[in-house]
Amino acid sequence: MPGKEIKTVSFVGSGNVACALAYRFQLAGFTIRGCHNPHRKHAAPFIQLTGSQWLSFEQIIQEKNLLIVAIPDDALPAVCKKIQTTALVLHTSGSTHINLLQHAAKGYGVLYPFQSVTAHSAKNNKEVIPFYIEGNNISTQRKVYLIAKQLSDEVYPMKSEKRQHLHLAAVMAQNFSNHLFHITELLLKKEKLKFRELMPLLWSYFSKLQHHNPSTLQTGPAIRGDKKTMAKHLELLKVHKEWKKIYRILSSDIIRQK
Amino acid sequence: MPGKEIKTVSFVGSGNVACALAYRFQLAGFTIRGCHNPHRKHAAPFIQLTGSQWLSFEQIIQEKNLLIVAIPDDALPAVCKKIQTTALVLHTSGSTHINLLQHAAKGYGVLYPFQSVTAHSAKNNKEVIPFYIEGNNISTQRKVYLIAKQLSDEVYPMKSEKRQHLHLAAVMAQNFSNHLFHITELLLKKEKLKFRELMPLLWSYFSKLQHHNPSTLQTGPAIRGDKKTMAKHLELLKVHKEWKKIYRILSSDIIRQK
Repeated sequence: MPGKEIKTVSFVGSGNVACALAYRFQLAGFTIRGCHNPHRKHAAPFIQLTGSQWLSFEQIIQEKNLLIVAIPDDALPAVCKKIQTTALVLHTSGSTHINLLQHAAKGYGVLYPFQSVTAHSAKNNKEVIPFYIEGNNISTQRKVYLIAKQLSDEVYPMKSEKRQHLHLAAVMAQNFSNHLFHITELLLKKEKLKFRELMPLLWSYFSKLQHHNPSTLQTGPAIRGDKKTMAKHLELLKVHKEWKKIYRILSSDIIRQK
Repeated sequence: MPGKEIKTVSFVGSGNVACALAYRFQLAGFTIRGCHNPHRKHAAPFIQLTGSQWLSFEQIIQEKNLLIVAIPDDALPAVCKKIQTTALVLHTSGSTHINLLQHAAKGYGVLYPFQSVTAHSAKNNKEVIPFYIEGNNISTQRKVYLIAKQLSDEVYPMKSEKRQHLHLAAVMAQNFSNHLFHITELLLKKEKLKFRELMPLLWSYFSKLQHHNPSTLQTGPAIRGDKKTMAKHLELLKVHKEWKKIYRILSSDIIRQK
C-alpha cells in the first residue's frame, strides 16, 4: 500500500481549507511539516492549530512526500507555475483542472473536499467530508485514493471536467441559496423579525429534501401561477430594486420549468 | 375558555392545506362536518382522509362553529365575498389581509400554517406546525389562539401587514432555494450525476444555519471576488441563457452585499 507510507505533509496556503485539511491529516496520524503563506503573519492560525512552522516557498517545495496546495482558486495558476517538487502535489480546488499541475511534479492530482469550510468550522468539525479525487495516472490516483481514505470514508474518483460541473452545482445550490437566506434575513430585520422565524419552515423542507428531489417539491405563488400574490410581493419589494429583479427572474424560471 | 367549546369545523377547499389542517383538527378531537369544492370530484382525497362529506356552498356556510377557508390565494377574494356565516371564519393565507373577511362574519381571522404542505406531507406528518394567527378583535383573537393551541404548541399572533412580509420571506427562502436546487438537479443530470451527491454538502450547511445567520456563512467565488471561477461557470452555463442570468444577478448581489 504505497499511499500508506506517506506520513508527512506540507501546505502551500494557510487559510480555512488548509486548516480544515491539516486538522484531518493530524487526526489521521500525519505529521504537518509546515505551511507557506507569502504573508507570514497570515499563517498564524494554521501554525497555532497544527503546532507546525512557517516555511519559505523555497523550503516548502523541498517537501519529499506530500504537498497540498490549498489557496484561492484565482491564485492557483501563478503559484502552480512556480512549483517544482519531487513530492506528490495536490490542489484542492473543485473548479480547477488537474493539468494546471502538470509541470509541477511527476505525480500530481486533486483532493477536493466537498464541504464549504468557513472560519466557524475549520477546527473541531467531526463531520464526514466527502472527497473527490484525481491523479495524473493510475498509480498516482491510487496513492491519492489511499491518502484520502485516511481522512474520510467517502472518497470518489472524478475527472476534472465532471468535477467542474459538480462545483458549479455546489455554488448554485449552496452559495446562492445562502444568499437568498441572507436577503430574507435583511428583509425580516426591517420588520423586526429574525431569520430564526423561518427555521421551522426551512427545517421541515430540508427533511423532505432528504427523500424527494427538488423537482417534486416546488410550492408557492409562482408554480401556482398566482399573479396577484406575486404582484403583492413585488410591491413589498419596491424599494429593493435588485431583489425585485431576483424575485422576477426566479419566479419566471419556476413558471418556465413547470 | 370559549375556544375550547368549538369542536366541529367545516372547510371551504379540499386541497393540501385543507387536508393537512383537517388531519390536525381530527387529532385534536374535532369533528369535521365536511368540505366544499366546486368540483365535487376534487374533494375525494379530503373526504377519504377525514371520513366526512362533500357539502354544497349553501350548506357549508351554514356551519355554526368554525369555517376554515383553505383555497388558493388568488381564489380568496371572489369566494370570501360570497361567504355569509354565523360561524367564526378563518382564512389560511400568509399573503392575504384579514380584512378580506370583514363582511363574511362577525368573528373572523387568520390561521396561517407556517409550513409548505405538499401532497407528500398532507397526511401522517407529525412535525410541529407553527401557526401565525389573527382575529378581528381581542375576543376573536383569543378564540383563534385557543383553537390553534389545540393544533400546535407554536402559536404566534401577528398582524396582517407583518405576516405579508413573513410570507414574502418564506417564498424567497424556501420556494426560491428549492428552485435553485431544481436547476442543479437538471444540471447534474446532464453530467449523469444525481442531486443526492450534493446532500452531504447541503446537510453540513443546513446544520451551520441552525446556529449562525446566513449573513455570516457566505463562501464561494462571488464573495471572494474570484472573477476567473465565475467566468468558468458562466462558460459551463452558456447553453442555458436563463440560468446564466440567474448566476450573474445572484453573484453581483452577493458582491454588492459584501
